[in-house]
This record gives sequence, structure tokens and C-alpha cells, in this order.
Amino acid sequence: MLRTHTCGELRLSDANKHVTLAGWVQRVRDKGSVLWIDLRDRYGITQLIFEEGKSAADLVEKGRSLGREFVVQVEGVVTERLSKNDKIATGEIEVKVTAINILNAAKLPPFTIEDDTDGGDELRMKYRYLDLRRNPVRESLQLRHKMAQQTRTYLDGQNFIEVETPVLIKSTPEGARDFVVPSRVHHGEFYALPQSPQTFKQLLMVSGFDRYYQIVKCFRDEDLRADRQPEFTQIDCEMAFITQEDILNMFEGLVRHLFKHVKGIDMPSVPRMNYDEAMKRYGSDKPDTRFAMEFVEITELTKGKNFPVFESAELVVGINATGCSEYSRKQIDELTEFVKRPQIGAKGLVYVQYRTDSTVKSSIDKFYTPEELKTWVDKFNAKPGDLILLMAGETYTTRKQLNELRLLMGDKLGLRDKQKFSALWVVDFPLLEWSEETKRYHAMHHPFTSPKPEDIKLLDTDPGKVRANAYDMVINGTEVGGGSIRIHDRPTQQMMFSHLGFSEEEAKKQFGFLMDAFEFGAPPHGGIAFGFDRLCSIFGGADSIRDFIAFPKNNAGRDVMIDTPSTISEEQMKELALLTRK
Amino acid sequence: MLRTHTCGELRLSDANKHVTLAGWVQRVRDKGSVLWIDLRDRYGITQLIFEEGKSAADLVEKGRSLGREFVVQVEGVVTERLSKNDKIATGEIEVKVTAINILNAAKLPPFTIEDDTDGGDELRMKYRYLDLRRNPVRESLQLRHKMAQQTRTYLDGQNFIEVETPVLIKSTPEGARDFVVPSRVHHGEFYALPQSPQTFKQLLMVSGFDRYYQIVKCFRDEDLRADRQPEFTQIDCEMAFITQEDILNMFEGLVRHLFKHVKGIDMPSVPRMNYDEAMKRYGSDKPDTRFAMEFVEITELTKGKNFPVFESAELVVGINATGCSEYSRKQIDELTEFVKRPQIGAKGLVYVQYRTDSTVKSSIDKFYTPEELKTWVDKFNAKPGDLILLMAGETYTTRKQLNELRLLMGDKLGLRDKQKFSALWVVDFPLLEWSEETKRYHAMHHPFTSPKPEDIKLLDTDPGKVRANAYDMVINGTEVGGGSIRIHDRPTQQMMFSHLGFSEEEAKKQFGFLMDAFEFGAPPHGGIAFGFDRLCSIFGGADSIRDFIAFPKNNAGRDVMIDTPSTISEEQMKELALLTRK
Repeated sequence: MLRTHTCGELRLSDANKHVTLAGWVQRVRDKGSVLWIDLRDRYGITQLIFEEGKSAADLVEKGRSLGREFVVQVEGVVTERLSKNDKIATGEIEVKVTAINILNAAKLPPFTIEDDTDGGDELRMKYRYLDLRRNPVRESLQLRHKMAQQTRTYLDGQNFIEVETPVLIKSTPEGARDFVVPSRVHHGEFYALPQSPQTFKQLLMVSGFDRYYQIVKCFRDEDLRADRQPEFTQIDCEMAFITQEDILNMFEGLVRHLFKHVKGIDMPSVPRMNYDEAMKRYGSDKPDTRFAMEFVEITELTKGKNFPVFESAELVVGINATGCSEYSRKQIDELTEFVKRPQIGAKGLVYVQYRTDSTVKSSIDKFYTPEELKTWVDKFNAKPGDLILLMAGETYTTRKQLNELRLLMGDKLGLRDKQKFSALWVVDFPLLEWSEETKRYHAMHHPFTSPKPEDIKLLDTDPGKVRANAYDMVINGTEVGGGSIRIHDRPTQQMMFSHLGFSEEEAKKQFGFLMDAFEFGAPPHGGIAFGFDRLCSIFGGADSIRDFIAFPKNNAGRDVMIDTPSTISEEQMKELALLTRK
Repeated sequence: MLRTHTCGELRLSDANKHVTLAGWVQRVRDKGSVLWIDLRDRYGITQLIFEEGKSAADLVEKGRSLGREFVVQVEGVVTERLSKNDKIATGEIEVKVTAINILNAAKLPPFTIEDDTDGGDELRMKYRYLDLRRNPVRESLQLRHKMAQQTRTYLDGQNFIEVETPVLIKSTPEGARDFVVPSRVHHGEFYALPQSPQTFKQLLMVSGFDRYYQIVKCFRDEDLRADRQPEFTQIDCEMAFITQEDILNMFEGLVRHLFKHVKGIDMPSVPRMNYDEAMKRYGSDKPDTRFAMEFVEITELTKGKNFPVFESAELVVGINATGCSEYSRKQIDELTEFVKRPQIGAKGLVYVQYRTDSTVKSSIDKFYTPEELKTWVDKFNAKPGDLILLMAGETYTTRKQLNELRLLMGDKLGLRDKQKFSALWVVDFPLLEWSEETKRYHAMHHPFTSPKPEDIKLLDTDPGKVRANAYDMVINGTEVGGGSIRIHDRPTQQMMFSHLGFSEEEAKKQFGFLMDAFEFGAPPHGGIAFGFDRLCSIFGGADSIRDFIAFPKNNAGRDVMIDTPSTISEEQMKELALLTRK
């Protein structure tokens, strides 16, 4: 090796050892008679010292010539430091340099390689290999490694087998848009990249693999929103001979194992809430349960007083923003503006201030008496000092809108600490959701999800009411995983496809192999997939998944470092028998 | 769970327990008064028993109705067997069935699901999910899982970080043909699927990641030979601040760890041989060292005796087929036919039989005296009973041809036992190889491989003689991994590209990001990649990689189970702005 020790390894007990280190020049401090250099590698930082008069003159000169990010190999003697640095593990020692070898010079980096950098997003992406040198980014990827390790430790321990499924598969019309790969051998034909290994993992259950997992790349050619990547990683799992209860227990176990072994946190057992209840209490199928601020419905209390907005409303529902009664007019106006933003689309916001002097004050004082308003605040269990925020309208929409306000108030009240974690199972999702765009029902999870047996009868009469054996794991208001018990017989699968608007022929062409497989002895089975990038970012306490991916693409799906996508040669196009349309 | 135990779990100590099992009907044996069913799952087989008169009549009837591969759940009582079966772990017990629940019926499978099946290759591929039920296939994939686990255990223990690199990258002209992925957003532009994460792992070294690995899918759009897959898996590794010696030690350690923990074999330390020596001694850069039968050169001994073939030959070289002196005329003719096959292309074969009666007999008796032939057999250290097989011609070609004969003789003499393992490092590969097709030098490993410093001066004068810091790991005559110490500075990399025929502009367009990166402080680094599919097949003692891949493609690159590649919709083609050329 070009070193005897790493830059994070030496301690006072190593004093007087002759060592060789290699790494990057983090900083040079030149005090004239003494020159210090911080040498950095993945493991830490070690201080090097050169002393005018004591060190050979050409050595000091060479040390002085080093620029930031030069790669050097140094020999020297470990010595106790005069002024110790208790912020770093090697802070009690420094290395008196006796020889130095410049392994590679470095141009001045386009941004500073420090925890807080002056580099903008695009610049950091273009020089991602330099950005990756920064501690926060490197640590994010080390966390990801640990998450993957611990995921495997847990699942291996539970008798799961990791099986690799193919990347070159078949394009299917259901779900998001596929990336496709033209075949050179079969002109006019394409492979598709998997959006998930769904059908393969189900086939593995038919094969008797019993417990499967894979940490696997998946692909979706969707219009990118901030923080979505065209390629992403899933922890993909499937089990046979189980009920929903077994899956929930097994994967609650995984998440608790990860919290325990990656974060050192003993996470309590994960509560369960059905979809309808989550919508009613939080207006969301992925409620942030780090804080309460639950919805309170007061529709009945508001009727008959001629306030037109509430009078016509299907639902009047609110939250109690504890301790916010003294919000100024301006602060409340800001909240109103927030809910009226086009992304949220509410018409307005009604407030009831339960003042610290126990009086009530509201934007709709002229419709309701203080006594009436008092019955409202009582319904909220509000105390003097609290602020009730109310919204009204069609049930589903109003809940969705109030959910946004709840999250905003959670932020304002500091209730969404990124180092605090709250997990929740949301269960009993609807099987289907109506799409106004296509005027038909779509599978909410995917077409392989089994309906609850007791609801199957509703498929013909009231499809939107059919519940699925489907579940999501939610942490801190983010869906980190979701899954379902699958259909495992041909007639039910065929019925599902027909409800989703597939012709019999189409269903057979796309998924015939799966339905065939169901006829050769398919066991009851189900599974789950976790979004690994997102799960890592939550464990890392970060908003963005970017820094948990070594080489992410930008919001236009472009890797600006290697400059892709890019044109290919005419020869390649010919071999693939492809032309670009003008 | 739908079971209390698996089908591989129950023992005599569980007698009298009331249990629930679930699995597949492997076999029904109906003796009239007694019915036995073998119930199978991934963990094993448990015998079920139904007794006429003792079991409820409808239960026996139901048992009798079960077909092969039906999926059932049974309840029953564990009982000691009358006639035990010591071939299976559950062979001391059987389960007296008290209730049975058919979870799913099964049509008659298209081939028998037994260790030796009657299914042909294409049929087994079409119904791969049934083929995967067979023990040998399932065990191959379980071995693969264990190989991956143990690879991670070893590398994690050596401080390697697993980092995922992108799958949607950029097409480059060097190496094999890329699979490409059209961009929907940037019409006329494409991503490419990686042939290896080579440049990314090098960038990770520039980033200071120090020790990287990944078990990763790679892709090559090549004309498929038997046993090559368009998508394949690599154990991909890279280290910084190392010399070649460090890499060889580290990954010899990996291979020995795998033998120890997967096969229970203590593999001795791996010998090293340079390329030139391997070619001279075995005629191959991946010699099978399970057996000796090394080449012996007798060129000088053969000259001046008017045998035209040897007289004009640059090299006369042979092997000693121990104990084969009494081969019949027919047997020797078969060997001659073998080396004359077009794939090998030799003109002929000369033999010298060192008969058990100590006489020598040769096909070229009329050119050489018995005394002369005796000097030859002495050179081979042959003993009475041995057979010397000689080939002659241009050095490189003759060695390659004799290598094929050596392997054939190894097979014939039973020297290539699949359960015996011999590993070898081949080092000091040539940097470049001449291509007659393109009339230029190509990188033998890849363009990022560093030349040996002492050979750089030959690059302009005698490029074919330049040796690289490149190495292959060979097991049983198969290259299972290869790597090199990389170039880590811009001038050398630029020089390499120019020697490989890249214009400066082209090199910059394709690999500018890497050469840029080399200017910002790149450490010395190197690495290796193992072909994981192949490594698993060797550990499994198999010739083919097929059964070590869950869902392989056939030799035409087609997945016949899901029927891909296939056409995509006109709408998809429009979105991608693509047309198929007629």
C-alpha cells in the first residue's frame, strides 16, 4: 500500500511511530516558521507539520508549494500536538514530515470542498466527483451503504433469498411510461426497462422461492418533478403462504431493525390506520404523525346561521394551532394566501382565535355569536391561546387542502423535527381510483393487487368502494414503502384486467405468462417495495434524495457530468434500423 | 402464516405435535388402504399419510383427488414413520392428515418437476417458473445468493463501500456494442446501458471513496454465443493508494474466502504467472491448472532431418499424454481430426508412442531414428506407456492449437474434475493487441489500463510489446475476473487515446469528464471485476451459466417466457420521435 495508516487512524498511543500517509491537501496554514497542512482521506484528517530550520529546507519549500486538493504521500513521525483539537479523532497528534511525494497535482477546484460549499447546484453536478469529496455527501452515501447492509442482514436472517430479475424486459401499457431499448437483432422490436420486478417476483413465488428480496434499480420515464429520478432503487420483497398480517409484522421488523442498527433508535411498534381514517383525521393517506393537530369536523355546528360558505359545504373541518391565538392580521393573511395558492386551490380560510383573555374572535363574527363560537373551540378541546383554522367544501378536496395547512402549521410550530421519527401503516386502500382524464378506473396500487373478498361483490356496482389488501408504510408524512396481497388465480386476475379496461386479447398478450403461471399451482402471496433512495434520505434527515445517490440526474433527466443523453452515431442508428422523426 | 412449519423442518422430536404445512404436491402414492403424499416447499419434503378407515372418508377422497403441483394447506399430527427414509431430513416422520385445504389447483405441468426432467431447453425456458421449482435450479440460485452474501461479508469487512452507479449512461465507441435507450425529452438523443461502471468507479476514487465495490448488472449488445447473456452481473471493485500487489492480495483473499465459506474448501494461496509464461507453458492466457501436461518445446531437436513440416516450423511443441501409448490408430486419428476442425485449424498432429515395451513408434518414423525419437521422449520426461503429441508452425497459433488438444486430453484422462478447483493469477498482459479487421491496435483490457512505466518508451516503436499493469484471475481454465492499475493523469490518458486512434476532439467528447477529473487531484488507483454469473457456475460445478440466472435469455437474446423484445405502440414511437427503417 502507498500508506501505513489512514488519515483517521493515528492516536497519541502511536507517538514516535514512523508512518506513511496518503491523501488530499485540505488546507495549508503558513505561519512563516511553521507550516501546517491538513491531510484528508475518507477516514479523517491528520495534521502535518513542517518546521523552518528543523525540517530540511527543500522539504518546507515543497510543502509550501502544495495547493488545495493536491494528492500527496508523506512520511513522518507521529508527535504529540501542542494545541490539541478535540473536534477530530486525530486531534491529539500531528505528523512531523520527513519526506513528501506529490502523487498528483490539482487545479483549483471550481468550488470549495468544505461542509458548506459555495458551489451552485449545476456546478456541483457537473463536477460531481468533487462534490462527493465533501463530508456531508460522502456521509450520506456511507449511510446508504449501511442501510443496504442492514437491510440484507435482516432479510437474510429471515430466510429471504436475494434473486436478480432481468433489466431487459417487456413494455406494458399499465402504470407509468417505460424506457425502451431497441433490439438490434429483431428490428422494430424493443425491450423495456422495469418499473419494478413485480411480475418476476410473483413468478418466483409460483416457483416456490417463498421469501424473495432484491435491492434493485427501477426505471420510470416520467416528467420529472423536483427530487424524482428516472432511475431509482427499491427494496423489493415478496412472500408466499402469508396473510397481510404476516407482511406487516415482517416489514415493520425491517424498519425497526434499520432504526436500531443504523440510527441507534428503539422505534416502538408501528401503529396501523385504515385509509378512510387517515383521510378523516389527517386529510392524507400519508399523514405526518410526528405531531397530532388532528382534524375536527364541525359541519353540523355551523349550519343554519346563513354563512353561505358553510351553509353549502359538505364538510366544515379544522385544526387547532396550539398557542397561535395572537397571530397578527398579517400572519393570518399569509395562511389564507397559502391555501389559495393554485397548487392547493382553496377558496379561503376561516379562523377562530381563542384569545389568551378567553374571548373568541373570528373572521365570521357577524354570522355566529361568541357562544356559538365557544361551542366550536370546545369541540377542538382548545385552550385560551389557541387558534382554530377552518376550511369548508366538498369532503375529499377540503381534507386534502387542510392537510397542506396542517403540515405548514407543523413546520411553523417546529413539530416536524427531522431527527424525530414516526412510522405508521396505512391499510385498506381503495382498489381502484377514477381518472377524469381517461374516464375509467385505474388500479390504485397495480393490477395484481387483490380486492378484499367481502368487497368483490361491489366491483360491478360501486367499484370506487372496493377496498384492497394493500398497505403503505409512512414515515414522517412520506410514503416510504407500499405493497399488497396479490391475486393468485387466473379468473380473479382476468376479472381485474377486464375492470381496468383491458380486452381479453390485450390482457393475454401483456400478462398471459403470469395468468398461465397461476394455473400451474400458485401459492397465496404478497409483498412490498420500499423506495430506497427516499428511505435513506429520511434516515439522513434530508429533504432531498439527491445526495443519497452517487451520480444523480438533474430535473431534465440529464447527467451534466458525462453529458447524457447524447446523440449516437449514424452507424448505430442503422444497426438498430431507427430513424429520428423530424 | 398459513403454516406452522416448513416442509423441511419436522423431526422425530416433533412427534405428536399438531402442525399446519403448506406446499406443493410432489407425488401421490395410492396403495388403496393407504395414501401417501409428498408435500414439497423450498425447505424440503414432508410425507403426508391418509389411511382408509382411520382418516375421515371425505378426507381420503380429497387427498386422492390431488394432482401433481396442487398447492395445499394441511393440518395433521406428526408421527414416527414405519419405514424411515434416510435420504431426506424429515425422513423419520410423517404427518397424519386431519384436514386439507386446496389453496390452488394445478394443470398438468408441461414437463416433470424432478431433478432430471424430460423438458427440452426451450420448453423449460418458456415455463421457467416451473423449471425453477426443480431442486438443481433452485439450489443453483441459492448458491448464487450465498456467493453474493459472502462477497459482501468479505468486502464490507475490508472497508469497501458499496456504491450504486447509474444505469442510464452515455454511449462510447470503445469496447463492445452498447444497448441504447432513446430519450423522450431530448429527441434524437440516447442514453446507453453500461458495459461496466468503469469510469464511475474511477471517479469514485478521484472522490476519495478509497475502496468501492458493487454487485451490478452490465449490458453488452453482442452477437450471442452459447452461454453469453446480453445482461450479466459483475462484482465490480476499485481501490486507491495501492499497487498491483495490494490488489492481487485483496482479491485472492476474496476468492479464498468464497471457497472457504461457500464450499468449505481451504484453497492454497494463488500462484502467479506472467502472460508470456502462460502462453509458453499452456498456450493460453487462462490455463487450466487442475492438471500439468505442460508444453515441451523440441524445435531444435527436430531440425536437419528433412521432415518438411518441422523443418519450416517456427515452433515444434508437444504434450505428454501420460499412459496413452497404447491408443489405437482410430483413437489417434480422432485426435488429428479434432485439431484439424475449422475452429482450431491445425494442419495435423504428430505422435510418438513410448510403448510399454520401451520401444518408440511415431507417425514420422521415416524421418527420425528410434534414438532420435528417444531424445524427444526424454525431453518430455516420458515413461514407457506415455504418448507424445506434437504440433508445429507459427509460435502463437501453434500454442493456441495445442492448448485445445491439451484440454481435450485433460478431459479424456479425467483430469478436469468439476469439484476440484485450481486458481491462478495471470499478470503482465500486453497493453495492446493488433486487430487485422480494423488495422489498428486496440486496448487488450480497456483504454484506462496503465502501461508498465519501463515499457512506455516502446509505445511508439513496438506497441505490441508494451506490457500493462493488468491481471486476470483464472479458475479451472476460465477467466473469472480481470483488472488493472489505471492511468490517473491526463497526459498519459490522452496519449493512450491517441495511440488507440482517437482524435483529440473525440477523446474529449467521450471521456473529457474523466480527464478533467484527473486534473483535480486523482490518486493512484486500480481495480478488478469478476464475472459473477460465471463465478457462480464454476462454484456450482456447472458448464453453463444459465441455471445460475433466474430468468435468462435464449441464444437469440429473447426471453421466451415473457416474449420480449416485442413491438411497442405507435404512440410510444411518436413520443420518442422514432421511426423504424424499412
